[in-house]
Amino acid sequence: MNSINDTLPANYIFNKPYEKLIQLLRERRPSKVFLLVDTDTEEHCLPEFKKKTEQLPINEVFTVKSGERTKSFDTSVYLWKKLAEHDADRHSLLINLGGGMITDLGGFVASTYKRGMDFINIPTTLLAMVDAAIGGKTGVNLDHLKNQIGTISSARLVLFDLSYLQTLNEKEVKSGFAEVLKHGLIASMDYWKNVNSKENVLDQAEYMIKGSVSVKSSIVEKDPNEENIRKHLNFGHTLGHAIESFSHKTMETPMLHGEAIAHGMILESYLSYKISGLEKHYLTDIITVIKKHYELKGFSEAEQNNIIDLLRYDKKNKNGNVLFVLLKNMGDAVHNISIEHDIIKEAFSYLNDH
Amino acid sequence: MNSINDTLPANYIFNKPYEKLIQLLRERRPSKVFLLVDTDTEEHCLPEFKKKTEQLPINEVFTVKSGERTKSFDTSVYLWKKLAEHDADRHSLLINLGGGMITDLGGFVASTYKRGMDFINIPTTLLAMVDAAIGGKTGVNLDHLKNQIGTISSARLVLFDLSYLQTLNEKEVKSGFAEVLKHGLIASMDYWKNVNSKENVLDQAEYMIKGSVSVKSSIVEKDPNEENIRKHLNFGHTLGHAIESFSHKTMETPMLHGEAIAHGMILESYLSYKISGLEKHYLTDIITVIKKHYELKGFSEAEQNNIIDLLRYDKKNKNGNVLFVLLKNMGDAVHNISIEHDIIKEAFSYLNDH
Repeated sequence: MNSINDTLPANYIFNKPYEKLIQLLRERRPSKVFLLVDTDTEEHCLPEFKKKTEQLPINEVFTVKSGERTKSFDTSVYLWKKLAEHDADRHSLLINLGGGMITDLGGFVASTYKRGMDFINIPTTLLAMVDAAIGGKTGVNLDHLKNQIGTISSARLVLFDLSYLQTLNEKEVKSGFAEVLKHGLIASMDYWKNVNSKENVLDQAEYMIKGSVSVKSSIVEKDPNEENIRKHLNFGHTLGHAIESFSHKTMETPMLHGEAIAHGMILESYLSYKISGLEKHYLTDIITVIKKHYELKGFSEAEQNNIIDLLRYDKKNKNGNVLFVLLKNMGDAVHNISIEHDIIKEAFSYLNDH
Repeated sequence: MNSINDTLPANYIFNKPYEKLIQLLRERRPSKVFLLVDTDTEEHCLPEFKKKTEQLPINEVFTVKSGERTKSFDTSVYLWKKLAEHDADRHSLLINLGGGMITDLGGFVASTYKRGMDFINIPTTLLAMVDAAIGGKTGVNLDHLKNQIGTISSARLVLFDLSYLQTLNEKEVKSGFAEVLKHGLIASMDYWKNVNSKENVLDQAEYMIKGSVSVKSSIVEKDPNEENIRKHLNFGHTLGHAIESFSHKTMETPMLHGEAIAHGMILESYLSYKISGLEKHYLTDIITVIKKHYELKGFSEAEQNNIIDLLRYDKKNKNGNVLFVLLKNMGDAVHNISIEHDIIKEAFSYLNDH
């Protein structure tokens, strides 16, 4: 990984983010400004946001219910109609204040309203700061299939206000931390070691977030449309997404994204050990670190079959083949690896044994 | 207008279109090939298409009901689910065989499925050939508001097979011809005169279609995201779209797009005469030509108010101002013109008197 400041894109603002926002409004003079929040961020972040942006002329606040189920086509239709009702035009601006659900949904709605209006992301969760709100992917779910519908459209600005992290509970922090671990595994052994060095994940929030933004944005810049190395960001996500979909279908309290990805990373690290040459002691390191942060769940034979069946919806598939991203080494990944079901089941056995 | 052949983009294929299609499949090897038709093109165009493309491996044909009402999110959701069900991935290809409804809808569905899969347009109506299927705009309607949701995404190829024009009735030909007239009015007096020189519109189909494709694509190339001169393509459409929306809301047999645009062009030519210096005798020419091809309808005071009210949804609006494209001269347009309601009503009176 290069030095962090070299690779942070100019529209990702850590320093005086609200001043930058006011400046942008002065320059671009949007016809109207809308703010999207969910019931969680309305309660926990909106008061703080309003206090910090008193000068900001907001025409309307749209509130949607928090939770992954809201990231749907129905909510998109609801928001498109709200925008039309309030005479939004393609020179209007939508500010998305929230976690990944809000930035994915708001980005999709804005990028397709009248074929595209500007949007700004203000991520309020660790997961959104290190992953969802950056890199230009927007999307909504199609029933239980995550992000099946979406666009690639960049936020005009992404504003980082780390004070919102104080509103998160431990589970939510852990959910974002899985992506941080992934960034280390695919791009930098040093970063992996450093982010694991503290007992409390948020003790080094700024270092960690800038590091993850740097890893992700330098990959996205090289391959915005995911033709090759952007696929590396899917490490842990092929099985992780399937586990997440499965958990939404079957569990009363579905796994958070990061919990599912943590399981996916263990499974895919095992596959890396079997297939792409990851040394055994690194596999042991990875599962040790992940177990320190996440409570692992085992999967029965029937559950494994269900999850494997869900792999057919993976967005990286080609010609019906499920293609994995695997580690060759710590900080070094390969993509487009096809794997037999037997070996995937072996990986589940490894997970079940730990 | 420059010579036609200079300005036809390389992915717009008039010469041996199906050979080009087969060649593309050989080169890009899509994982699956899907075909989208509506109940009209299934009956009138699909048999011909199949005969001409026997070598083509189609995995599945999706048929939707013909008519503008099908261009909705409900249909989009239906098609996204069908694609998922048939294991479409982002390396799959969707071929849109139909009029503007099919190319707009299919383009939107493809460009947002897993954040974008390839699509090819094969326009079967005059309207789609000279307008809807080219230029990269995709979209669906939000209730009665036309194309409020969409993307800017180019078809990988647009194939022109003029034999499909024989399946059209006179009304459908007239619907497309309005866009041809518009291309003359905004870009070339010669083209305007030539396309008006024949009794039967289709007597010069190839000249006319290549001319319109050339006008539109050279404008789109200069301004793909409609920041400035692409707006000229909206001549006749500001009031025309409002009339079309109005007719869908209130009439049992709604106006076809081209009929609404024909009315819009008369109204906006009158505005051009009053505001932007179009000479009176050209206004007379325009209404004479349009009356030759279209049966004009008058609008009551109440209907006018309804239509004017619908202007607030126009996609070119900025800060609540409705912005018109007007003619300075034959073949020469200006954009971003704001106009008082009184003068719009005067234009309706002029239309009612003819």
